[in-house]
Parts: sequence; structure tokens; C-alpha cells
Amino acid sequence: MDAAQEANNREIFRQTVVNTLERRLFYVPSFKIYRGVAGLYDYGPPGCAVKANVLAFWRQHFVLEENMLEVDCPCVTPEIVLKASGHVDKFTDLMVKDEKTGTCYRADHLLKDYCKEKLEKDTAINGEKSAELKHVLAVLDDLSAEELGDKLKAYGITAPETKNALSDPYPFNLMFQTSIGPSGLSPGYMRPETAQGIFVNFKDLYYYNGNKLPFAAAQIGQAFRNEISPRQGLLRVREFTLAEIEHFVDPDDKSHPKFAEVANLEFLMFPREDQVSGRAARRIPIGEAVSQGIVNNETLGFFIGRVYLFLTELGIDKDRLRFRQHLANEMAHYAADCWDAEIECSYGWIECVGIADRSAYDLRAHTDKSGTALVAHEKYSEPREVEKLVITPVKKELGLAFKGIQKMVVEALEAMDEKEAMEMKETLETKGEAEFKVCTLDKVVTIKNNMVSISKEKKKEHQRVFTPSVIEPSFGIGRIIYCLYEHSFYTRPSKDGDEQLNVFRFPPLVAPIKCTVFPLVQNQKYEEVARTIAKSLTAVGISNKIDITGNSIGKRYARTDELGVPLAITVDSTSSVTIRERDSKQQIRVNVDEVPSVIKEVTDGASTWADVLWRYPTHSS
Amino acid sequence: MDAAQEANNREIFRQTVVNTLERRLFYVPSFKIYRGVAGLYDYGPPGCAVKANVLAFWRQHFVLEENMLEVDCPCVTPEIVLKASGHVDKFTDLMVKDEKTGTCYRADHLLKDYCKEKLEKDTAINGEKSAELKHVLAVLDDLSAEELGDKLKAYGITAPETKNALSDPYPFNLMFQTSIGPSGLSPGYMRPETAQGIFVNFKDLYYYNGNKLPFAAAQIGQAFRNEISPRQGLLRVREFTLAEIEHFVDPDDKSHPKFAEVANLEFLMFPREDQVSGRAARRIPIGEAVSQGIVNNETLGFFIGRVYLFLTELGIDKDRLRFRQHLANEMAHYAADCWDAEIECSYGWIECVGIADRSAYDLRAHTDKSGTALVAHEKYSEPREVEKLVITPVKKELGLAFKGIQKMVVEALEAMDEKEAMEMKETLETKGEAEFKVCTLDKVVTIKNNMVSISKEKKKEHQRVFTPSVIEPSFGIGRIIYCLYEHSFYTRPSKDGDEQLNVFRFPPLVAPIKCTVFPLVQNQKYEEVARTIAKSLTAVGISNKIDITGNSIGKRYARTDELGVPLAITVDSTSSVTIRERDSKQQIRVNVDEVPSVIKEVTDGASTWADVLWRYPTHSS
Repeated sequence: MDAAQEANNREIFRQTVVNTLERRLFYVPSFKIYRGVAGLYDYGPPGCAVKANVLAFWRQHFVLEENMLEVDCPCVTPEIVLKASGHVDKFTDLMVKDEKTGTCYRADHLLKDYCKEKLEKDTAINGEKSAELKHVLAVLDDLSAEELGDKLKAYGITAPETKNALSDPYPFNLMFQTSIGPSGLSPGYMRPETAQGIFVNFKDLYYYNGNKLPFAAAQIGQAFRNEISPRQGLLRVREFTLAEIEHFVDPDDKSHPKFAEVANLEFLMFPREDQVSGRAARRIPIGEAVSQGIVNNETLGFFIGRVYLFLTELGIDKDRLRFRQHLANEMAHYAADCWDAEIECSYGWIECVGIADRSAYDLRAHTDKSGTALVAHEKYSEPREVEKLVITPVKKELGLAFKGIQKMVVEALEAMDEKEAMEMKETLETKGEAEFKVCTLDKVVTIKNNMVSISKEKKKEHQRVFTPSVIEPSFGIGRIIYCLYEHSFYTRPSKDGDEQLNVFRFPPLVAPIKCTVFPLVQNQKYEEVARTIAKSLTAVGISNKIDITGNSIGKRYARTDELGVPLAITVDSTSSVTIRERDSKQQIRVNVDEVPSVIKEVTDGASTWADVLWRYPTHSS
Repeated sequence: MDAAQEANNREIFRQTVVNTLERRLFYVPSFKIYRGVAGLYDYGPPGCAVKANVLAFWRQHFVLEENMLEVDCPCVTPEIVLKASGHVDKFTDLMVKDEKTGTCYRADHLLKDYCKEKLEKDTAINGEKSAELKHVLAVLDDLSAEELGDKLKAYGITAPETKNALSDPYPFNLMFQTSIGPSGLSPGYMRPETAQGIFVNFKDLYYYNGNKLPFAAAQIGQAFRNEISPRQGLLRVREFTLAEIEHFVDPDDKSHPKFAEVANLEFLMFPREDQVSGRAARRIPIGEAVSQGIVNNETLGFFIGRVYLFLTELGIDKDRLRFRQHLANEMAHYAADCWDAEIECSYGWIECVGIADRSAYDLRAHTDKSGTALVAHEKYSEPREVEKLVITPVKKELGLAFKGIQKMVVEALEAMDEKEAMEMKETLETKGEAEFKVCTLDKVVTIKNNMVSISKEKKKEHQRVFTPSVIEPSFGIGRIIYCLYEHSFYTRPSKDGDEQLNVFRFPPLVAPIKCTVFPLVQNQKYEEVARTIAKSLTAVGISNKIDITGNSIGKRYARTDELGVPLAITVDSTSSVTIRERDSKQQIRVNVDEVPSVIKEVTDGASTWADVLWRYPTHSS
């Protein structure tokens, strides 16, 4: 099968899945009666139930199991918080405009589409050209506005619909802006992630945890990104549910007490080296990945393992799940290491969970901006003698030499780290003066021996004060759910073989409705039994749907399979009923009064279908 | 006790509760390290758990129990949707500005504060003045901008902090505005309620329900109101969680099949008549309230009963809960009836749930604006003969008579209802012409006999097409939770009697943590047992906290009581432990291996403490 045919098959598969999802109201475009808004979707009843199940399991698997501190912060965020985090200045995409209609596009998307299309469909291109286009795709995320603009021009790329000329690329901030309060003087944004709400509360949470590290805080909530041109359905949307964990840890000790529990898990990993050298992803036990230094530390490795368990228990196919390490150019300068859980679906490999060791960056940024020290303390059992760097600028001499810029020079001197300071000390002692770059002035000045004194002094310290590192697993819930839909979907022929029926093989944990109940025929007695069963299921918290329409039993099974309901109860007597399992279509006979407990143990995960199958007589319809 | 002393006691009680809540991180002001933003709060770990429990119970009690269709729609909403709903034009509060500093205030709040203060503290005012101020308080919500401005001037009310003069009141729209997409040309708002997301999906939901009425849709989500000057802590905030139900029903049949299940419930009701005539709220069985016509219909009555059950099961004190009917001036013109569940707390009676019969207003508004008919169909078993009003304007004659305004006259004629049309028909037949008011022109025109034909024609109809009525219970989750905190809080003396200890008497359903586990003394064996128990509790989904600090057992109990943890397990042997109940402080001895099942049955609500108390030996410490 060639690439084009494969792409075509993927497209057909996706259309079948998406049509089913929209027809059964798993999700629909929002505000449809007003012709919708790109990038906004509503979850209908089954989608909403799937989402609630995924989030409940997330809480059990992470928050409860690891004793995390869950918080719930507002979406409306004042500007200063997002200034500190860097979002106001840097959370941008490069945009181009159709010069005549004003329609906006993401510059990198247009270039990407062009390269992919050329590579896939243009059989005439030569090896050199092909290599060039592949290189462009590889470095796409690194291109500056100017470089992107040059490429668009060089390839003659125009607006996709109109073929009009395009503007030069320029940055567009992806946050939804608003104004807080009635004065119009307090700009605010809808948060682009939930993490900042945790960072600004670090001090209180650390106290709540008894001033002990490590601990993790977690938040589930809406996040907002005003995408330039949303596409790929649920995968790139303007509002979405994030579930984020911030695990705070001593930067000098990133071991994890429960690492042994995941160390033997083995799954597809795609380390940086393998990507660069063109190798494929390979199965590595996570314990080995950490001990070999492929994964930076145990805590990061622990979360990778836990994420693997979380996704596969939801029903993600383990063969279409890999953990890909960020390349050097993808990672923020402060990050120690970063891995994405990527799930393969018809759109390709999709980043669904990011697991990053962000070092002390976020807490430091908020400490600087707010003036509140977001730090941890380690009390020594007895005071320790430590050597401390002491830098004392001689303000009088500096004032004479650097009139007007004196303040910046003083600050730059005080901000030197140990290595830099000790080098300057040596230079001053040997040469009497040293060249010194003042970053805030973007200027090199000459510092003389009499302008600063640098020394190391011994001090007694009773505690160590430090900024914790943070390890952040961040889950895009909508993306995970969409991939789950694709991985759970299959079709099978109807009994008479003249049509294909859709099935979602959701595990009971995820299934939107756990059980349907229907009388075999329309008959008052059976209907009463069906209602009694439905009521007793509801009482024990099992979501169920009663179907008393006159449709054939086959049709009702088909409808329930298409919603991914794992079990169906058919009432064909007043004393016992059949319970049918969705995928195997096997049926067992169970007494009416035992029904709720059997359904509960299977849907709660206490037993499997196989467990109950041998306990009850099977039934063939 | 006089009014001032009572107010003072309330204030002291509130401070004690709020201090405890903030200290234990139930909630804290958001973005505290940046000096916060008025009206925004974070829920810390225990608050977040309480909220999750309240929402889970809401889903069980309403969505699952009534088979409601849950949906999940975005917060970002395009302008046209909120134009249709009336929010863009009418969702305003009247605001005044300090003329020198520009600080904004809600005009009605300033007037209300002035009147209350005068009535409470000014002993010199006479009966006439007192009656006048009371009248102002009663009609406060009805005052126009002009009337409010006149009152503020008449009473010499100035800015509270500066005593500067105030501007005239003017309307301020309470929605957070933003812009959707990169063009800047698509205004949007953060939704002020979740209801609109349901209304715009009516057609799909009706289809999902098999084109049958009645059915209910539900949504839990964030809503946003840019309050002018937020106050009263969690009660008036700028972002909050709403849980809303829209129950769609045939306007000709508002009976409810399950009404009998709630009919005998009896609780405090405060009908309109009683409020107007100065009587107090009284206990009325809801069945009686419906049969006597105090509550408009069974469906409305059913939800009032279900809301009563919901709130009291959460722990709201039934003696500080009442259902107050809206007065005529409080209700929207289209509403058939409206009741608020009000809970009494230190701030007075607070509206926490609104239960309104909004008739067909919302679906009609979106039908008009979108052009999509949001209607239901009732198929007749056999076709029925119906009389239909037919209005045929004679365009030629109208054109001659009303050049330029012809279109408006034609539309107004066609829009006449049956009564109006039949009256015009009679007038035209008797007098040859009729006066006719064209609202869109705000003008009366003379219609002659030859300009319009009006008749009734018999037609065969196969179905009835109608706009369903909607009954809307709308829950302010944050307000309910805050009132629950106040109702659950009490203090009791410590063992040695020298301090007051705080306790939240949360029912297990609501408690943020179900159980704490601690070794009696710091000892490796006991710690191991404690950890094993904690692990087995987590495995069955019971949130728990292990406390291995060296604090005294009394101190650890006090800490756990202050979080409202219902059960505490003390490990004082390796084979059996004590379990202590929070409020009674009674203790039982239970074997280690039985602990999880005992804790589970009490916290799940399968048994009460009293049930297990007699099964196990009691323990006195």
C-alpha cells in the first residue's frame, strides 16, 4: 500500500468514527444553529459521561493514589501573573494575513502543508529538493518570523482559498484578553494553562504539606488558547480541559520512593539520540531508561510509568503509544528533560501528555515578580559551616566611573554567579582591571580593582534555603479522549451481513453508560421487570438506559454497541434475564435479584466478564 | 439581644469560620502573592475535595436518578448567542463613579447600605422616615437609573472611602468581553450562565431523546460575571461554578410522573402572598402547595422537593432553608412562576438555587435569532380538524395607502394574534375601517376593509408543533458550599478546657477526607500498620490522610476535626485498632483486616455510625 492510499484509508476511517461520534452526540460543533465557531465543541451526553469517567479515574490514579493536593483556581487571571510566567510576551504563533480578504493563517501550517503536499504528491521532484523540504519540516519550529517569511516567498505560497498574496509573518498572542472589574484599567486573560494557579500558591501548599518536600499539587480545569486557525477537530481547539500536576522536589534529590513499583514497566520510548540518528522507537524498561541516564531522574521516570498505566487502563492501545523525548531545540532553556506521551491516530502521532522537568524556572519567575520568596527550607540537624560568595561593589568609585549607568553596573556585578565572580577576582588581581558585559545595557565596561571587592567568607548556617524543582505532567484531556475514540472503534457485519455495525470497545471504566435494559418484547410484565432492574442499578450508582421501543432486539443491540455500552440486559422472563457482553456477544442467564451485583462487579472492575462467565449458565439466542 | 448585638455576634461567628477555612486552605483569595483580585478565590485541597463531592452527589441525585442528558459546552461564547438571550443588552448593573478617584460602586448597594445603617444605628429617626427607608429597601430592585440617582442625591450619599461626590448611575454590562479568533472582528463573551449552551442544542438533544418530551438536560461548568464591586466572600464572585438543569415539558401538561415521591415532603415555604402581607415563612407539604395552586405546577413542585432533599442530605440545616416565591416585580415577564431556595447564613438569607418556570421564552428567542425552529412535535394518532386563523394583507391597497412604511404594516398585520385579528375583523365588517397600532413604527394607522382579509379556515393536521416550556433549577455551587461551611461549623472546649476547638460536622458524603490514620506513638511497627491500612483504604477509593508526626493524639484529633474528617483510626496494636467518630468522640475496636470494609460502609452511607457501634466493642481512651 503506498503512502497516498494509506492516507486515504486513514481519512475514510476517521470519517466513519467522526460521523458516528457526531451522530450519537459524543461531541458536536458548538453553537451549530448560529453556524458554529471554529475550535469550539460541545460534549453531548455520552461524551460528557466519558469525560467525567476519565477525570474520575485521573483523580483516583494520581490525586488519591499519590496523596496530591488538589486545587481549583479561576480561569480569569490578572496580567501580572502571566507577565511573570512569560505568556504575555512569548505565548505567540506567527501569523500571515491574506492581503485582500484579511483571513488569517498560521505561517508554519502553510509552510508545513506545502512541504508535505509536495513530498507526497509531486512525483517530479528530485532528491535534492526532497531533502530540502524534509529539512524545512524538521526545523519548522525553530524558524524566526523572517526565515518563515523568506520560505513562504521562495516557494510562492499564497492564501489557500483565494490564492491572494500573503502578508509577512508577525506574532499573534494566543491568549483571550479581557478586562477585570468595571474601570477598564485592569487587563486580564483567560488562563492558557492551569499550572500558574499552583505556582502562585506554592507557599501555602508547602505549609499545608507540613513544610516538607517532595509533594505534588494537581488541578483539573478549563484552559483557553485563541488559535489562529483551529483544525483537526478535537485536537486543536480554543477551549479545553487540562489536568496538570506540579510535583515539587529538592533539586539535589530527584529520587522517588515508589519508583520500584514502575521500574519493570516496558513500553515504546523514543529517546532524543534515536530520533536524531533516524532509529525507530523501541521498548525500554523505564528502570533501565533511568539507570542509563536516558531519562534524567527517577521522579520523571516514575511519572512516565504512571502515565503509561493511566492511558492503557483507559483503553489506549499500547502499540500506538510512545514516549518521545524533546529534542534540544524543542526544550525551553531551563528544562532539565522533557518527554511527551504521543498517541498515534489518523492524524499521526499526537502529543497528549507532556512530562517535563522544568527545574526551578516557574517558582523563580514568580518570586522575582511578586517579591514573595517561593522557596523551601531544609533544617540542618546541626549548624554547618559554608563558604559564601560575597560581592561588594564600591559605589563611590563606580559612581565616578559610570555616571548615569551606575545602577545597572552595580546590579550586574551583584548578580554574578560564583564562577564568573571568581574569574573576575583573578583577573583584577593579576591585571588590575577586567572587561565586564552588562546585559541590561548590552555593553561591555571596564571594571577596575578598586571598584569591587570579591571574597569568599565562611558562615554558619542552620538551614538550607532553596527553590524546589518542579516536574510537570500535563494532560490534554480532549486529545486523550479523541484518541481513545479512534482506538476503541471497530466495525463488524450485521447478522444478515448486509451492513457494517459500529462498535466502541470502551472498557467499563470509560463507557458512558454501563448497561442497557430492555424487555425482549413490548409487554407490561417485562417492562415492569426492566424498570425495577434499572431502578436498582441507579441506586447503586450504575448509569443505565432503558429501551422500551418496539425495535428488534438486533437493532437495539446495535444502538447500544454504537455507544460502547459494555453490557445489555434482556428481560425475557420475570424471574431471570440474559446479560450480553458487547464484544464477545456471549450471553449468560442471571436471576433478576442477582443482576445489580453482577453488573456492579464487572463495571467496577472487581471482576472481569471471563470471571462471571463460568459462574452462570450461558445462553444462546 | 438587640439587633446590633445580634449583628455583632454574627460577625464574630463568621470571622471564626472564615479564619478556619482560610487557615486550612478550604479557600483563599486568588493570586495572593500579587495582592489578589477582588471576587476571585482558589479552592485549596479540602475545599476542592468538598466541591468534587458536592458535584458528584449532584450528578447522582439529579443526572443519574432522573436520566438527564448532561452536556459540556465552552465558556467562550460568540456575541450572537448572548444577543439572542438578551444578555448583551440587559445583563447590567447600575454603577456610579467616585468623581475624583474613578472608583466604581454599585449604585443600589450604596443606597441599601445607607438605608440599613440608618435603620440599625440612627436612633433619632422618626416613624415616617423609618417607613420611607424600609419602602426604599423593598423597591430597590425596581428603581430606574434616574430614580436611583435621585435617591442618592436626596440622601447626600457620597463615595464610602473618600466622601467625594458620585456620578449619576449608568448601566455597566457584567459580562467579561473578549475577541474570538485573530481578526479582532468577532466579539465574544465568557458565558454568564451555562443554560444557553443547552438551549442552542435543543434540537439535537430532543432527537437524542427519541423526539419525546419531557426530558431534562444538565450542565455543570464555570460562569463569569464581572461584578462592579464584589463582596461577601464566596457569595458574590467574578467566576463560579454553576450546575443547571433545563427540563423541557409540554406547556399543556406540566404534570410529573414521579411527583408522588416528593408530595409528602414538608418544609419552609414563603409564598408571594405571605411576603406581601407580612407573614412569616411556614411549613407546607409540597403536594398541598401544588394542589392549592401556590406552586404553579407539578414539575416545578417536583424539583422544589428534589432540591430540598439535595441540600439537606449535603448537611444544610432544614430550619435555615426556605423556598421563597418571587414577587411579581422580581419575575421576568415571561416566567410562569419562580422559587428560590434561600439558605440563612451570617450574611442573611442567601439565594442558592433558583427554580423557575421560564415558559417558552428561551427556545423562542433562539428560534427567532437563528432561524432554526426549536420546537417539539406531537403526532396525532389520527389527523385532527383544526380551525386556523388566516390573515391575508392585500399588498396593492396597502402599498397605495402606506408608501414607504408598507412593509412594517404588512408584518404587523400578519403578527396579530387570534383575539386581536377577530376584533379587527368585526370592526372592519361593522365600521369599514379600524385603528391599528404598528409597534415597529410606534404609530397608529387606519386599516380599511379592502386592505386585509381575515378568516378562520378548517384544516386537517397530523401533528401539533409547539415550543416546549422549560423549567430551570439553577444551582450556585460556591454559595451552597459556603452556607454548608457555616451550618457545619461548631466549637467545643479542649480536654483541659483551656481553648475552643473548631469542628466541621460534614456528613461523610461531603467530608473532604473520609478518614485519618495515625500510630498512637512514633514506632516502626505501628507506622507500618498505619501505612498498610492507608493503602488498603486508597485501593477502595476512600480518601485518607496519614499523620505520623509526633504530635499528641489530642492535637492530631483536633487537626482532623477542623478539616471535618468523620473517622479517625488510631493504631495502638498490630492486630486491632480504634476507630473514633468525630462528633460523638465514641471509639470502637476493630480488627485491622476489617478496617477498610467498616470505614467504607460508613462513609459510603450504607451504614450509619450507630449501626456499626453496637457490632464492635467500644473503647474508652
